[in-house]
Amino acid sequence: MRKYLVEFIGTFFLVLTVCMTVLGGAGNFAPLAIGSMLMVMIYAGGHISGGHFNPAVSLGAFIRGALPASDLLPYIVAQILGGIVAPLVAAPLLGSMGAADAVTSRLDVVPSLIAEFLGTFALVWVVLHTATAKGTEGNSNYGLAIGFTVLACAYALGGVSGGAFNPAVATGISIAEIKSFSDIWVYLVANLGAGAVAALAFNFVNGRD
Amino acid sequence: MRKYLVEFIGTFFLVLTVCMTVLGGAGNFAPLAIGSMLMVMIYAGGHISGGHFNPAVSLGAFIRGALPASDLLPYIVAQILGGIVAPLVAAPLLGSMGAADAVTSRLDVVPSLIAEFLGTFALVWVVLHTATAKGTEGNSNYGLAIGFTVLACAYALGGVSGGAFNPAVATGISIAEIKSFSDIWVYLVANLGAGAVAALAFNFVNGRD
Amino acid sequence: MRKYLVEFIGTFFLVLTVCMTVLGGAGNFAPLAIGSMLMVMIYAGGHISGGHFNPAVSLGAFIRGALPASDLLPYIVAQILGGIVAPLVAAPLLGSMGAADAVTSRLDVVPSLIAEFLGTFALVWVVLHTATAKGTEGNSNYGLAIGFTVLACAYALGGVSGGAFNPAVATGISIAEIKSFSDIWVYLVANLGAGAVAALAFNFVNGRD
Amino acid sequence: MRKYLVEFIGTFFLVLTVCMTVLGGAGNFAPLAIGSMLMVMIYAGGHISGGHFNPAVSLGAFIRGALPASDLLPYIVAQILGGIVAPLVAAPLLGSMGAADAVTSRLDVVPSLIAEFLGTFALVWVVLHTATAKGTEGNSNYGLAIGFTVLACAYALGGVSGGAFNPAVATGISIAEIKSFSDIWVYLVANLGAGAVAALAFNFVNGRD
Repeated sequence: MRKYLVEFIGTFFLVLTVCMTVLGGAGNFAPLAIGSMLMVMIYAGGHISGGHFNPAVSLGAFIRGALPASDLLPYIVAQILGGIVAPLVAAPLLGSMGAADAVTSRLDVVPSLIAEFLGTFALVWVVLHTATAKGTEGNSNYGLAIGFTVLACAYALGGVSGGAFNPAVATGISIAEIKSFSDIWVYLVANLGAGAVAALAFNFVNGRD
Repeated sequence: MRKYLVEFIGTFFLVLTVCMTVLGGAGNFAPLAIGSMLMVMIYAGGHISGGHFNPAVSLGAFIRGALPASDLLPYIVAQILGGIVAPLVAAPLLGSMGAADAVTSRLDVVPSLIAEFLGTFALVWVVLHTATAKGTEGNSNYGLAIGFTVLACAYALGGVSGGAFNPAVATGISIAEIKSFSDIWVYLVANLGAGAVAALAFNFVNGRD
Repeated sequence: MRKYLVEFIGTFFLVLTVCMTVLGGAGNFAPLAIGSMLMVMIYAGGHISGGHFNPAVSLGAFIRGALPASDLLPYIVAQILGGIVAPLVAAPLLGSMGAADAVTSRLDVVPSLIAEFLGTFALVWVVLHTATAKGTEGNSNYGLAIGFTVLACAYALGGVSGGAFNPAVATGISIAEIKSFSDIWVYLVANLGAGAVAALAFNFVNGRD
Repeated sequence: MRKYLVEFIGTFFLVLTVCMTVLGGAGNFAPLAIGSMLMVMIYAGGHISGGHFNPAVSLGAFIRGALPASDLLPYIVAQILGGIVAPLVAAPLLGSMGAADAVTSRLDVVPSLIAEFLGTFALVWVVLHTATAKGTEGNSNYGLAIGFTVLACAYALGGVSGGAFNPAVATGISIAEIKSFSDIWVYLVANLGAGAVAALAFNFVNGRD
């Protein structure tokens, strides 16, 4: 139960930061804020839940053998709940700032599938190597590495697909009307597919220790 | 005594950075500077005083059992003193730069209470997990995590409430006339309330070790 | 084989980030994204391949005695392959974003040789000290140091030479038509020369342990 | 001899980054680049020379008992040499970029003395605590802390005094005609004075271990 609460809190703050910075005028500073928030929530919650905050990461961790099967569904539920509550909390705050309404943009499907696949692959690749491999045990920088993967991928790929790399974030930005629910399957397919492929690639190059 | 001096110095530099960057034209780079200054003061002073620099953090640390009751009041006094001296030092420096006078903005009360509560909850949550939990002992990145929580929250929530998350900062920005003293109760209520709630949440998920 | 795959993946994401941020409108945030991507790929892959992602680094590591001769050529091949594939993947993504075509700029030869030499010297100097010296064993921050060397050098020197500091990046930006293939010798000479000189300087000040 | 070479190289790259970013159009990204370069040079060279790259730091380290008297003068000579060579190397690179000539600005003396004193105090305070105190032994983040102190102070105080906090940087920006040699005494007095005061404050709160 405590693990699921930690996953909810971390995902909530991650998606809140996405909604508030993208819609609140942070411009090109948004990826810095988002990557930093992911980093700090990992440093806070990682010792209790592993600090996934992302169903694609939980799927990858499960395939790699770093998450028990019985935790997979509750983790995803907690994460999606965080992704649902965050935009509901953000809405009145954005209203108070006088932020303009979101203009819902549609995805260009094939490039978005590629961009979301690549960004999520990078993210899960970094998570599994820095937080679950024997070769990096004792290294304090897993949180920095994981958070700044999202930072870098958001700058590189956000212009294509919005840069979610995370079904919980995709849920949040759909509720916030930054993206359309009609396109959410793009995120689900690309993010979960990339999480699985990254875990298999990890198992190949690292072994399962 | 040495602990209180460390708390004064760290809070002074934190609030000085707030005043100088917000009023001195750093624009959207202000949160990067402010979060970085908090981080470096924690790395410098943490081994002596714990590196709180924030009454809400000291309150949370006390509730969590990481600060003796006899230190709570002196810590808060030293922090508030830092928050008072910093804007007095900043004023002539800003004058020399030709910075425009501050335009005091009033708070939209309910959204500001929410924003300050959320940001301070995140901050104290990260502090207690990274700097006081057994599960993160030996991890060098507590300072990075704590400083960059303020960075991320300032980008996400600063547009709503100014982004103090800290009664000593609230004191400083009120003296600097960035915000009005008539609204300082919003910060006190939200920051101290969030510090207490975050400590209780920490005690629930982590136990008191 | 696993090491070469790790070198390919890391270099691919590094060069992809270069192409996407330089041509996709990230402006002055590009070095932050690029340095961050290099950092995270080092934290992910370093425990398997050393995390070079750069023929100049592999040459320097070989001269310093930290890479077996038999690995030098396969490493460089894997890196250059990453530098070839990345711009081919980036092209349709940039098209989908509506990014303007690259305007190929030519190098001012002598200043570019100096800038590329200096940046690559700094990079290989930092790599060898933070990732191969006895005096820094156990320090978690090699990835941060190496990634942010590229960040700092790109801000300082990118305006002169484009800021590759890496023949695999030079290959990628030539394919992406950011720079001209007629000038690629500038990168090869300056990057590989600086990698060798930095390794000799390292061996002099540090000894070969 | 090897220590002095490391001090020369680190200071050279620090001052080169200052000149290239301030005069080369990096705008508000300059402090990010400068703080990052200081950080990476500390991670590279710290295990050999201590990574001072700043006469005010060497003076503070000497007073704190962390630098032998016989090294103080050679360190300062190596650092000042780095500060002299860097702008000479930067000049043709800036010319090649088509950078505008520097417009030499004069200092407002009293505010600049205050700003340089405060920034250098913060810097030497962080250096001594993170790199020489028993209480922080084993923490990997001294380089991040020290580099980002300069980052934060440059955003906060750079608009007042230029943000040198370092006589070697002051030498470099005087040669580069960013500031006037007539004002260099301001830096020497404030930086060395602050280095000494910070060391005494450190000795008071930490003891000499």
